Amino acid sequence: MGLPVVGMVGGGQLSRMTHQAAIALGLSLKVLADATHDSAALVACGVTVGDHTSLDDLRAFAAGCEVVTFDHEHVPEGLLEALEQGGATLHPGPAALRHAQDKVVMRERLAALGVPVPPFTPVATVRDIEGFAKHVGWPLVLKSATGGYDGKGVWVVASADEAAEVVASGVRLVAEQLVPLQRELAAVVARSPYGQGAAWPVVETVQSDGVCVEVVSPAPDLPEALALEAQSLALRLADELGVVGVLAVELFQVAGPDGTSTLLVNELAMRPHNSAHWTIEGARTSQFEQHLRAVLDYPLGATTATAPWVVMANVLGGQDAEPDLDKRLHLLMARDPSLKVHLYGKAVRPGRKIGHVTALGSDLADVRARAQVGAAYLKDGRWPETESR
Amino acid sequence: MGLPVVGMVGGGQLSRMTHQAAIALGLSLKVLADATHDSAALVACGVTVGDHTSLDDLRAFAAGCEVVTFDHEHVPEGLLEALEQGGATLHPGPAALRHAQDKVVMRERLAALGVPVPPFTPVATVRDIEGFAKHVGWPLVLKSATGGYDGKGVWVVASADEAAEVVASGVRLVAEQLVPLQRELAAVVARSPYGQGAAWPVVETVQSDGVCVEVVSPAPDLPEALALEAQSLALRLADELGVVGVLAVELFQVAGPDGTSTLLVNELAMRPHNSAHWTIEGARTSQFEQHLRAVLDYPLGATTATAPWVVMANVLGGQDAEPDLDKRLHLLMARDPSLKVHLYGKAVRPGRKIGHVTALGSDLADVRARAQVGAAYLKDGRWPETESR
Repeated sequence: MGLPVVGMVGGGQLSRMTHQAAIALGLSLKVLADATHDSAALVACGVTVGDHTSLDDLRAFAAGCEVVTFDHEHVPEGLLEALEQGGATLHPGPAALRHAQDKVVMRERLAALGVPVPPFTPVATVRDIEGFAKHVGWPLVLKSATGGYDGKGVWVVASADEAAEVVASGVRLVAEQLVPLQRELAAVVARSPYGQGAAWPVVETVQSDGVCVEVVSPAPDLPEALALEAQSLALRLADELGVVGVLAVELFQVAGPDGTSTLLVNELAMRPHNSAHWTIEGARTSQFEQHLRAVLDYPLGATTATAPWVVMANVLGGQDAEPDLDKRLHLLMARDPSLKVHLYGKAVRPGRKIGHVTALGSDLADVRARAQVGAAYLKDGRWPETESR
Repeated sequence: MGLPVVGMVGGGQLSRMTHQAAIALGLSLKVLADATHDSAALVACGVTVGDHTSLDDLRAFAAGCEVVTFDHEHVPEGLLEALEQGGATLHPGPAALRHAQDKVVMRERLAALGVPVPPFTPVATVRDIEGFAKHVGWPLVLKSATGGYDGKGVWVVASADEAAEVVASGVRLVAEQLVPLQRELAAVVARSPYGQGAAWPVVETVQSDGVCVEVVSPAPDLPEALALEAQSLALRLADELGVVGVLAVELFQVAGPDGTSTLLVNELAMRPHNSAHWTIEGARTSQFEQHLRAVLDYPLGATTATAPWVVMANVLGGQDAEPDLDKRLHLLMARDPSLKVHLYGKAVRPGRKIGHVTALGSDLADVRARAQVGAAYLKDGRWPETESR
């Protein structure tokens, strides 16, 4: 058939949903998973169990692939460089990926590019942090330079004593101003090696305890000029950093002068991203198909929305480690025959992302309520208390 | 997690696309395939290679599944009954499936139910056929009672001599009037064990040499009353025959009295069907997800269309056995970033269904042209000659 072999390092839900998209393109995703019960390993046939921090495992995996891509940022940069030097095609490559792996590298590069970011500085000691606090005040934010996700590796500290506890953990840190944000947005784009770029509508993301719980597309009441600015910024960053594949730019919307709003870049992710799961049903081309098109250097697909409003809500694990998901699915489907459910096949732990639901329609309040009810019911097996239908 | 295990007998593209839908529901489809290179076997991890005419193979496969369903009608009825007697849950079961396996059984049952079918009779000899021809005239249609598909097992014969050749082949035959049809339609529905039914919009299907090449949803210019009649008929048949899963009712639209049109049932299929591939992007619930919901006795999903017009065109194998599909995909995506491509991973043989494309939009002529151009280009690597863009 002559179709290329794409391998993805990491067996999580991003790999799982990328495999789903690969099937339509006539492909079968190869997956390097940590274990046979990984989310993607349960549904793909080309699964290798191996260690993404082992050069031998990575080399063996890459040898069977024409393109290697990633469902996380945890492969050490040195190994990525060794793979690339060994002839593997990595998309994104290490030169781009380091900006998603290391917050100090990212912040410094963005600042150098003139991209607005929160005031920040790398810090090693409590004294460094106290010095920074003189400029931005307490409380401020400390972030692990590497490895954080879903609120892990982020601390809001109100004093030198609290900062000392974080410093004592020994992780490399960056300090940031606690920005008085109005809300969080995400601009998600894709870029191909040829240099083609495509942007989805800018979304609002809602976090709870540092974990994304809801994404609304398009971001309600976002001025057109600000939406265009966010998309342009993301496309420009993809280009400047040489990203290939999906790039998610997490943004803070903050109050600007004269009652207007302005944007600051919070984080970058160079892979399919939670803030674009809504694209599976909500855009003509999903982020998973688009990521594959990009890493294969195919022309990118149309990013037009398929409905006026699309809301995705994450299904988090509840307190019950062995919930009867089959029964919950049954009752939820009976209640909302139009809701789209995505379950990841993962063991349930409190707060863990085990799936998501997507609602689409022309009435934002209704669409949002449906997504929230669906996610809450799959989590706890209870309809929300405010419920009066 | 408590989610059920669904097994599908047959490793073709219907299984492949059902697996894609299963992933979202938190499942991983188990597949009984003929060979490791079967379309579904290339993308699913729970694949057993075995013989669907061997009771031992079927029993071993069914033992690992809570529900067994089918991507074809080729499992002999006696084996289905033995499996069911052994405790396996088959959806659809043999009592329903025989109406999709044997055209004589189907025609006689439908006639008994008062459902309009073309005039027909089982025939064994040329004399039988000549007798039938006295009522319906020549040419008439001979069909193999079992095993036909995609125009195979169907002969239009204009004389006793031509009929004799078919009789000599030794297959069990049914003779039918050659109906002066206006066009072909399909009414596709799903039914759950509980008895819930759901119907998609009625579509027009276009055949070439007995093979479906194009499906238009909804069927253009179909009077509302006729569309409702077709949907009601399909839902009623699903109920009367005890179908569980998707039921496709292939219909002839023929001239009725007073310039009106009327419907005749041509064929039944009790599985996801080519005439509903458009539902993957074109309906809120795809036929593959719906088939899974039905066989699991989950509530059925909404069948509402996601666009005013949806056209699916099959990609058939062209003359080149080793086409550069990667390049064709590249150029087609460049030309039409909104077209949805589905490739099945099958070896290319002339006329074989190797994939399909789907276009969606509000202008029927444009949507139809896009689907036709896409399918033709993937087949032959040439843009249609009428092309003037």
